[in-house]
Amino acid sequence: MILALAGGVGGAKLANGFAKNLSPDQLLIVVNTGDDFEHFGFPISPDLDTVTYTLAGMSNTTAGWGLAGESWKFMNALERLGGEGWFRLGDQDLATHVMRAAWLSEGQNLSDVTAEITKRLGILHSIVPMSDQQVRTVVETEAGRMSFQMYFVREQCGPVIKNIYYEGATKANPSQAFMSALDREDVDAIVICPSNPLLSIAPILALREVRARLVAHNAPVVAISPIIDGKAVKGPVAKIFKEIGLDASALGVARYYGDLLDGMVIDTKDSGLEASISVVGPQTLVTETLMRSTDDQIQLAREVMEFSQLLSRRDNTKVGSS
Amino acid sequence: MILALAGGVGGAKLANGFAKNLSPDQLLIVVNTGDDFEHFGFPISPDLDTVTYTLAGMSNTTAGWGLAGESWKFMNALERLGGEGWFRLGDQDLATHVMRAAWLSEGQNLSDVTAEITKRLGILHSIVPMSDQQVRTVVETEAGRMSFQMYFVREQCGPVIKNIYYEGATKANPSQAFMSALDREDVDAIVICPSNPLLSIAPILALREVRARLVAHNAPVVAISPIIDGKAVKGPVAKIFKEIGLDASALGVARYYGDLLDGMVIDTKDSGLEASISVVGPQTLVTETLMRSTDDQIQLAREVMEFSQLLSRRDNTKVGSS
Repeated sequence: MILALAGGVGGAKLANGFAKNLSPDQLLIVVNTGDDFEHFGFPISPDLDTVTYTLAGMSNTTAGWGLAGESWKFMNALERLGGEGWFRLGDQDLATHVMRAAWLSEGQNLSDVTAEITKRLGILHSIVPMSDQQVRTVVETEAGRMSFQMYFVREQCGPVIKNIYYEGATKANPSQAFMSALDREDVDAIVICPSNPLLSIAPILALREVRARLVAHNAPVVAISPIIDGKAVKGPVAKIFKEIGLDASALGVARYYGDLLDGMVIDTKDSGLEASISVVGPQTLVTETLMRSTDDQIQLAREVMEFSQLLSRRDNTKVGSS
Repeated sequence: MILALAGGVGGAKLANGFAKNLSPDQLLIVVNTGDDFEHFGFPISPDLDTVTYTLAGMSNTTAGWGLAGESWKFMNALERLGGEGWFRLGDQDLATHVMRAAWLSEGQNLSDVTAEITKRLGILHSIVPMSDQQVRTVVETEAGRMSFQMYFVREQCGPVIKNIYYEGATKANPSQAFMSALDREDVDAIVICPSNPLLSIAPILALREVRARLVAHNAPVVAISPIIDGKAVKGPVAKIFKEIGLDASALGVARYYGDLLDGMVIDTKDSGLEASISVVGPQTLVTETLMRSTDDQIQLAREVMEFSQLLSRRDNTKVGSS
């Protein structure tokens, strides 16, 4: 059984690779909700939707966000009426937000709502929010303090980040499915998908007890670097790493996760960093980590699973010989 | 200055005829909000939207409701997620509801919001809700008590109506613009558009003091029959008239409005009813009342205005000779 921690696009791709390799009972995908926000009264969960649409085979792989074949009649009409257009709500995507709002207002929690949406879209694997309580990622920038979406979408990641806060995280409990997985002893690997460590993974790790329980878990924790050759595969991860004073490289990622990791998967372009990462702690797998196609997703997921098994056996050997 | 009371499609057509004949300061269109309801958390104002879209030249004249060139991507996606599909929200129409919700939640009243929407859509004439307070038309049918939209859209006007209630009406004040018009002495005519008397006009008349003030007003009150030759031009008016025990004819309409009317406009097909209507009270204008085109709307509006002037002069003569 694989417990995958994911954020947006990169995480969604690897999670999809796992879903193609594993049966529904062998995979739990836990998704960041720190990016969630309210827009026009709709509760928007960008990362949950990215993972959901990716697993449903509905995502717009060209744009890297939203739905394939999306249309924008609503948005154009909204702007005609003077509505803010910086966050683009597609006609079809909007239905997800409207139904999420309806179900939440009926008293269902985000886990229930996500289960309902994924089921309706034909997804058999479990996609769950990291928490059913509100966590909000807020960035303190040179242009002021702002919500993640304001920074990411409206400001296009322009302002220099001075600090990042995960408001509500330390008081928020992991969702029930996530909590149960943390309690299970038959987890084969905990995989930190190639998502932004500071924006997509950190909110998950910041939840009540989560980091400590992951460190203490008997399953190996393996991260895939979202930085290849010093550059982000997608998004502002390299820029933000530098602004925060971290090394924008796979080594910087390994250092950031620190004692959490048993294994680190880096791209062949970064093979030169293998020795330095070993010094930090985790075992390293060097392979092709860029996922251009579904086949790439399936292949990388398989390699991560095999790598985790090796780590697992090594751990067992250690335990056995101690 | 014309004060027009309107409901949905028929009312919107004649209101549009007035707008084409009159300058913005010569017309106030007061619209029924008894049909308003909440759907998926959106505040929906069907009659306000019908009048607005008609005056903006955006209405779907073939379907008789909604916007021309509307698309249904949102609705299809919503139904895929299990959302109720009985009330069709088009992709473009949805923007109106979302912006209305946003502005109402900011504390604007429905009059302000309607002014903003109409302005954005390029409408110069004033369209105002009958009230800024909530009035809800509820029908008691043989299949139970239900909101107007449930009856009208979901149940397709099937159940036999036993009674109709305008919940909240007697405690609701007319909107400020409507109230001001009721106070003005320079109103040339109060026109009851060819909308359903029981469902579109009655909620307006049921508002605090409105019926009494219309009766007492110095301007002539003129109604255009929405029933021609015993049949509704559109909608369930003839069916409901029969169910409630009223005569489904222009005469029945005249009797229903009773002492409110100074003038009644009926179709040439109903010329045989002229004498009977005179007995009820109002003066009668017999003309072509079916509006198939914008030209028909302009023509009927003009005839109604000329007829009102005659009534007005007659009233003045009466006052002068008394």
